[in-house]
Amino acid sequence: MSKYQHIQQAAYEANMQLPKLGLVLFTFGNVSAADRDLGVFAIKPSGVPYEDLTPGKMVIVDFDGNTVEGKLRPSSDTLTHAVLYKHWEKIGGIVHTHSTYGTAWAQSQRDIPIFGTTHADHLTVDIPCAPPMNDEMIKGNYEYQTGFQIMECLEQKGLSYEEVEMILVGNHAPFTWGKTPEKAVYNSAVLETVAQMAYLTEQIRKDVPKLQDSLIRKHYERKHGPHSYYGQ
Amino acid sequence: MSKYQHIQQAAYEANMQLPKLGLVLFTFGNVSAADRDLGVFAIKPSGVPYEDLTPGKMVIVDFDGNTVEGKLRPSSDTLTHAVLYKHWEKIGGIVHTHSTYGTAWAQSQRDIPIFGTTHADHLTVDIPCAPPMNDEMIKGNYEYQTGFQIMECLEQKGLSYEEVEMILVGNHAPFTWGKTPEKAVYNSAVLETVAQMAYLTEQIRKDVPKLQDSLIRKHYERKHGPHSYYGQ
Amino acid sequence: MSKYQHIQQAAYEANMQLPKLGLVLFTFGNVSAADRDLGVFAIKPSGVPYEDLTPGKMVIVDFDGNTVEGKLRPSSDTLTHAVLYKHWEKIGGIVHTHSTYGTAWAQSQRDIPIFGTTHADHLTVDIPCAPPMNDEMIKGNYEYQTGFQIMECLEQKGLSYEEVEMILVGNHAPFTWGKTPEKAVYNSAVLETVAQMAYLTEQIRKDVPKLQDSLIRKHYERKHGPHSYYGQ
Amino acid sequence: MSKYQHIQQAAYEANMQLPKLGLVLFTFGNVSAADRDLGVFAIKPSGVPYEDLTPGKMVIVDFDGNTVEGKLRPSSDTLTHAVLYKHWEKIGGIVHTHSTYGTAWAQSQRDIPIFGTTHADHLTVDIPCAPPMNDEMIKGNYEYQTGFQIMECLEQKGLSYEEVEMILVGNHAPFTWGKTPEKAVYNSAVLETVAQMAYLTEQIRKDVPKLQDSLIRKHYERKHGPHSYYGQ
Repeated sequence: MSKYQHIQQAAYEANMQLPKLGLVLFTFGNVSAADRDLGVFAIKPSGVPYEDLTPGKMVIVDFDGNTVEGKLRPSSDTLTHAVLYKHWEKIGGIVHTHSTYGTAWAQSQRDIPIFGTTHADHLTVDIPCAPPMNDEMIKGNYEYQTGFQIMECLEQKGLSYEEVEMILVGNHAPFTWGKTPEKAVYNSAVLETVAQMAYLTEQIRKDVPKLQDSLIRKHYERKHGPHSYYGQ
Repeated sequence: MSKYQHIQQAAYEANMQLPKLGLVLFTFGNVSAADRDLGVFAIKPSGVPYEDLTPGKMVIVDFDGNTVEGKLRPSSDTLTHAVLYKHWEKIGGIVHTHSTYGTAWAQSQRDIPIFGTTHADHLTVDIPCAPPMNDEMIKGNYEYQTGFQIMECLEQKGLSYEEVEMILVGNHAPFTWGKTPEKAVYNSAVLETVAQMAYLTEQIRKDVPKLQDSLIRKHYERKHGPHSYYGQ
Repeated sequence: MSKYQHIQQAAYEANMQLPKLGLVLFTFGNVSAADRDLGVFAIKPSGVPYEDLTPGKMVIVDFDGNTVEGKLRPSSDTLTHAVLYKHWEKIGGIVHTHSTYGTAWAQSQRDIPIFGTTHADHLTVDIPCAPPMNDEMIKGNYEYQTGFQIMECLEQKGLSYEEVEMILVGNHAPFTWGKTPEKAVYNSAVLETVAQMAYLTEQIRKDVPKLQDSLIRKHYERKHGPHSYYGQ
Repeated sequence: MSKYQHIQQAAYEANMQLPKLGLVLFTFGNVSAADRDLGVFAIKPSGVPYEDLTPGKMVIVDFDGNTVEGKLRPSSDTLTHAVLYKHWEKIGGIVHTHSTYGTAWAQSQRDIPIFGTTHADHLTVDIPCAPPMNDEMIKGNYEYQTGFQIMECLEQKGLSYEEVEMILVGNHAPFTWGKTPEKAVYNSAVLETVAQMAYLTEQIRKDVPKLQDSLIRKHYERKHGPHSYYGQ
């Protein structure tokens, strides 16, 4: 029995949530689950349909992107996951999808404006959209550079990956993360619904103002921080 | 056996309708069921996934917001429910959701205009959108104030909670109510479909006029009032 | 055993198609099935949820709108059905829904423009939208007048009910019909999908031209008329 | 046992994917599967509901459009399939649907612009929209001419059917193809989701630029060509 079985199981279960939540068509998405002590993560094999997945098919990769165990080729986005795990020490799961509304915002190269409490329940700022990479980065080690593009975007905006657990990569699609793979999947679903609501909001009213600061703080702090009172 | 079992059962069943009707993602919604004689209501526990709910997990709260029975923490929106039950003597159920189209209108801070008979079958006026609260109200007892914001909005527009059983809270999302929790859930689904139709109507024709008064009265009175002839 | 059992069964089965095809929320729709020899039709009882329907609950009504058999009150739209059956001798089924996109066009008081072959496979003209009725008609025998409003709209546009089996009633919603109740339900689903496509088409291109006449004729005649070659 | 059983089975299975993927309403679509050695293809019979299909009902047709085996009339679009099989020697399956977003773009007579990597994962150019045919072509052998219209559109744009496996026919709807019928169905689902994303992208930002060339090449070559590294 593999010593990685627990993260294979976690990665498997989290991957299977994506089609169930309507976040992927065919194989357009992937989830990974990390074990920080072992210094590795389990990730979906590339191009394998969700209905053919099993926990044992999850590929074990280290934080430099080397395959440690597994017969299948890992997701083509593996290096992006590796870079983020390597630099962000407190995350345990990463999700990438091409969910419809999130991808439409990414293709528009716009941050998703904070228009309501559904958004503020999860983060206090616009959902950031990293600019498309330059030609050199794309032609080089593309997936590796995607990880750095994500980190640099947060950094330039002064955002912490522990507070902002989601991003759009311009022209591409959403990435989300969290302390666990379940939380990262949760964040992908939140991003998609917030993306749809923001799209509809602008259609209904062109000049809609952003949420006032007091309401942002109130809703965020209901769910997060020292005085939160949401949940059990 | 708890003497509150009947409202726990009613609250449970009504809560379980929300995901079935496509009105909630994860735990973004809650229903309560009141017993007027006992002076309490049963409400969903905070942050508990719908698939983990049981009637016994519903928390019993009085109309001042004090927990009377139950081991779990009640919904974070409990004080809003309490305020409305306390002041509106004829309601027996309240629902709060972040349903997609209703929330988009709330984020736009616009009333939903009355454009057709689907709307007029249920109310004779635009679905009101309460303005976002001021900073002081938000920073104070937020959920308590949300209840007063709802009541004040109806009052300022000269509307009766017995005739208008739904509202949007600006920047936030819909609240609905009714004589029973089932009716309140029904109203949440009606609000969502009317919100979608109104959105599409304005997209199809920018300068669309509102419904003429005679048609509003006709459809409303078919279903409501002394000469109604809809239903059995 | 009722001598009306065959139309009760037909009306029941056709009614049950509406929720299955996503054309109704709750009880917002109804189907009737006529027997021309007996001079009656079976129609959904008013306000009864689809899951509670049985063939025996279908109410038998004559073409003047009098209930002939049945303990329940027939649909509130019964007189509209009666008028159409009385004047249009070749129809055997009628459907009324508040389907989302069809209703949005009706609320916009616009005909649905013929933009493509999906539309032309079923009719050669825009789907007509009857203007809202005047106050007198609405305050009078409303549902009866709705039937006349539908007939008058077709007449004024020079359309035959045998070729155009669907209409929008302005500010209200779609009505469809056909030789059988199944065909009428089919037409309701066609109207809804054509309504959605036309809406999207105008969003994608504001100045989109209507379909050229040769293509309209070609597609319509593939499916209809003496030289049709669609189907078995 | 028919010597065509293998393509009947393949065509049957591929046809049954269309309703499962939400790409057809009623009978508005068809798939064919070719055997190049036998010089024939199996295609859906015309107007037969998907739930009534069996492998044995698939009609065998040669590349000139003559029925070789089968009691039912083949799809009314059969000649379009025949023309494409005759001229494009490397395809083994063809799909035609009236999927919602793809059809809306076709009705708009616009190519679908390449806005993101979901698109670039599958082709490096806008999804072409063939112009509507002239009156003469339509009044003549319409379905036969549709095949030539498709081929001519690719030719005029300098595109290879081996690289671009999808097209819109103006005013009509999408056609897709591939080495196998499964691949052709896959392409139909990809076209529909890319069509929806492109529609939303333009709604979110009017002046959105197309994808930069380096990113197009990178994503396309990840999945295709000599150095692809997607899949197993």
